Amino acid sequence: MSLVTCHISVSLDGFVAGPNQRAEEPLGDGGERLHEWAFANAAWREQHGHEGGERTPDSEVTEEVTAGVGAYVMGRNMFAGPGEGPWDSAWRGWWGEDPPFHVPVFVLTHHGREPLEMDGGTTFHFVTDGIESAVSAARAAAGDGAVSVAGGAQVIQQTLRAGLLEELYLHIAPVLLGGGERLLEDVGDPVLEPVKVVASPAATHVKYRVTYGERG
Amino acid sequence: MSLVTCHISVSLDGFVAGPNQRAEEPLGDGGERLHEWAFANAAWREQHGHEGGERTPDSEVTEEVTAGVGAYVMGRNMFAGPGEGPWDSAWRGWWGEDPPFHVPVFVLTHHGREPLEMDGGTTFHFVTDGIESAVSAARAAAGDGAVSVAGGAQVIQQTLRAGLLEELYLHIAPVLLGGGERLLEDVGDPVLEPVKVVASPAATHVKYRVTYGERG
Repeated sequence: MSLVTCHISVSLDGFVAGPNQRAEEPLGDGGERLHEWAFANAAWREQHGHEGGERTPDSEVTEEVTAGVGAYVMGRNMFAGPGEGPWDSAWRGWWGEDPPFHVPVFVLTHHGREPLEMDGGTTFHFVTDGIESAVSAARAAAGDGAVSVAGGAQVIQQTLRAGLLEELYLHIAPVLLGGGERLLEDVGDPVLEPVKVVASPAATHVKYRVTYGERG
Repeated sequence: MSLVTCHISVSLDGFVAGPNQRAEEPLGDGGERLHEWAFANAAWREQHGHEGGERTPDSEVTEEVTAGVGAYVMGRNMFAGPGEGPWDSAWRGWWGEDPPFHVPVFVLTHHGREPLEMDGGTTFHFVTDGIESAVSAARAAAGDGAVSVAGGAQVIQQTLRAGLLEELYLHIAPVLLGGGERLLEDVGDPVLEPVKVVASPAATHVKYRVTYGERG
């Protein structure tokens, strides 16, 4: 069965977005600094249609977290922005007509909508009956690939609380945001085991295996 | 001049002690899990008078953070416990007659007291006029050695806010405490640069250089 995994950039003080998230600044104040490790590296730039960038340990991590993903799960805010955001049939996501997913994406929402087929293999499906259902649908669609929970924080928290997330790959940025949206809050008491660490001056990448049994 | 450094164990959700800190459980609920990486390794056990333990990457980190320390700075709570704690001339710290410091220790407190000379080279000095004064006194006492800020969180936060801490070595334990005493809160906006990472199954050790100039 598909591995359910998640990779996300987090500040050293635990935030995945800075304070004052808003439509013009969906990552909040300073939130872009979380992703500097990605913006500079060659693999991310290529995936997002830019040239240049350096081959760094961060490039390898970028390739690792995108290889073999068969489907994504994401929250409504990630698809349409924080707060009220745009939510009508004209809204086609933040990523233009060829989003960088190239596989089915299951958007967890309270508002149903017909699937939205984009260029390049991305189709957004809208799931209204909860995280278990979204993960099940993503697993079915992913085939031999992994299910990657793309974010935001609330959806990742839901997968942890439900005991569904099997791997959590944190990109710990050397950044203090001082406030904003926390990642690891109200997630129950999963057992985390670091299984891989990749270090660079731009971030410390730590992959955790996540289980929910008795503590060893 | 002496490097001002700090090493401390922190949970993946950012706590240096669990909820409900109290005299019988000064690390709070679950707080001991932060230090499992240390308890199991040979270097820590030897320093604390126990035999056994394994030689692991964690052992090397333990040796690294204790080598070359010429003086410590610590908060009143670390010396005497949270809340009211014991605070009279009979109280000689938590560590018995031969504490594991072996150099001068400057305790930041509101209550003056004569220096307390212990066995094995540890002398506790009590500083009542603030963090700058405590760090200055520790620097003078440390000679060519480093000044290590031992904790707790409040004293570390003070050194960051005052722009005094030059190195922060975090032992990131694969543990979620869900509450307790946060480390990186209300510390201003220092610039952090990871300069070393040591990984083990028990913890991810990340050493940050800390500066306070303009962001690059």
